[in-house]
Amino acid sequence: MWIVTLDLVGIAVFACTGAIVAVRKELDVFGAAVLGLVTGLGGGVLRDVLIGAVPPAALLDWRYLLVPAVASVVVFAFHPTFGRRESQITVLDAVGAAVFCVAGGVKAAEYGLGVLPAALLGMVTAIGGGILRDVLAGRVPVIFREELYATPAFAGALLAVLAHGAGLGWWAYVGAGALCVGWRLLALWRGWRAPLPPGLQQG
Amino acid sequence: MWIVTLDLVGIAVFACTGAIVAVRKELDVFGAAVLGLVTGLGGGVLRDVLIGAVPPAALLDWRYLLVPAVASVVVFAFHPTFGRRESQITVLDAVGAAVFCVAGGVKAAEYGLGVLPAALLGMVTAIGGGILRDVLAGRVPVIFREELYATPAFAGALLAVLAHGAGLGWWAYVGAGALCVGWRLLALWRGWRAPLPPGLQQG
Amino acid sequence: MWIVTLDLVGIAVFACTGAIVAVRKELDVFGAAVLGLVTGLGGGVLRDVLIGAVPPAALLDWRYLLVPAVASVVVFAFHPTFGRRESQITVLDAVGAAVFCVAGGVKAAEYGLGVLPAALLGMVTAIGGGILRDVLAGRVPVIFREELYATPAFAGALLAVLAHGAGLGWWAYVGAGALCVGWRLLALWRGWRAPLPPGLQQG
Repeated sequence: MWIVTLDLVGIAVFACTGAIVAVRKELDVFGAAVLGLVTGLGGGVLRDVLIGAVPPAALLDWRYLLVPAVASVVVFAFHPTFGRRESQITVLDAVGAAVFCVAGGVKAAEYGLGVLPAALLGMVTAIGGGILRDVLAGRVPVIFREELYATPAFAGALLAVLAHGAGLGWWAYVGAGALCVGWRLLALWRGWRAPLPPGLQQG
Repeated sequence: MWIVTLDLVGIAVFACTGAIVAVRKELDVFGAAVLGLVTGLGGGVLRDVLIGAVPPAALLDWRYLLVPAVASVVVFAFHPTFGRRESQITVLDAVGAAVFCVAGGVKAAEYGLGVLPAALLGMVTAIGGGILRDVLAGRVPVIFREELYATPAFAGALLAVLAHGAGLGWWAYVGAGALCVGWRLLALWRGWRAPLPPGLQQG
Repeated sequence: MWIVTLDLVGIAVFACTGAIVAVRKELDVFGAAVLGLVTGLGGGVLRDVLIGAVPPAALLDWRYLLVPAVASVVVFAFHPTFGRRESQITVLDAVGAAVFCVAGGVKAAEYGLGVLPAALLGMVTAIGGGILRDVLAGRVPVIFREELYATPAFAGALLAVLAHGAGLGWWAYVGAGALCVGWRLLALWRGWRAPLPPGLQQG
């Protein structure tokens, strides 16, 4: 039960980031709902299509459709309030990515994938929605332009998949998620960056 | 038989819009054919991948490949003629979207999806090709920038899925399609828009 | 064995083009690895999803993940060297596309698709990775802007699928691949272009 709750929290937060991008691009309420749905559900749908779990979970449970739709419309209607709460959203976003990378990696492992592919799919679950959001909104995906985002998701997913293989309990998953959240927030607050191409000034 | 015919008409019209975008972007004849195929078949292929109906119908019937390829090349060769017939194309485009949303929603329902997901997939069938066309052509998808487009498709698909669930006959599908066409054309001709974010001038 | 080797060479070369685009866009090392993986594996994954061969081959064999990851990071670290070797990369890129179109078309035919859809999927295998790379990097896909690229891939795939249907041996596949490489390189070196829209100056 609390797993589904966490999952829905992640979806709702991701949907909010989609709606915020939609408001900044001056899209109408429907565009905001579509971008919100795509951002909230895109990563999980990509994973499910790649492991052959179709129809994707997001299409089999009405809550997975309702939550991001409602979240997007609420953000759309009250966007000045949400625009001011950027730091809370950043924390929630990191939590959402952590939930997604752990759940995605474990689900891929349960479908019989090896450690490395399963970890990769966990990362895809965490970053896929944001990539689709940015491509649809006509901008280079934020994971390419920003502080460390995908690396913590990959690390968290890898840890979760290894824990799954070793038969460890739920506390190991919590640890994997905490690693992802902690690394991401530290990178944000300390301005850590992955290495740039040699010869380029570190911005 | 007439269902397949309608389907092929929808595919041909969508392929034409892809080829017109290709001509405007000054692509060569091959680029026009690729954009035409993607626009005509993209929505249905997306739906089929998501409901697990692979290989997609578009790859199992040669007419589904031939029709959009021929339509694209014809538009490419005679584009000044087609450029002048924008209003007829708009009507045909609305008819194509109506056919796609009804057929897509009913197919998803037949694959066991619930009412809401099936209606969503009907909408994806109708708007997916256009979204892929615009992303490949490097512009923000038109459904985000224009008059009401996706909402009528969702409404038509929802009606069709409900009619399918209630066991109503083909006339109910026609009604669902007519709702989609009528709403779309009224929105275009009266300049209806979905609500914009609060604080933004209605354009 | 040598088929897998050729396949890995194609993946490595494509991954290098992804990493080079990443360096030009000033992405960090992680962005280069992601773009490299997507470019190297994207076409094959698209094909596998469309024919229902999930999880895709790229997720079931660790070499298919390791090779493009290593290739991307090497290019990232030594990009000035690779930037100077553009002509060798062009030749390798043509070889990679030839391997992909033949292998993709034959695999689709083995999954029961008809000649035309199988050839189309062979082409998708060859050009899909580059399209995804360019969409993610925020530019119009190079296949739409450049000299003949997709047509030779389609021709090579068609020939390979026909050879597969006729039960010809591996030498026919080599011939199909050679057609693709030769046509592509001739088009590049002689400046051949597919026809542009009527009324537009041939550039």
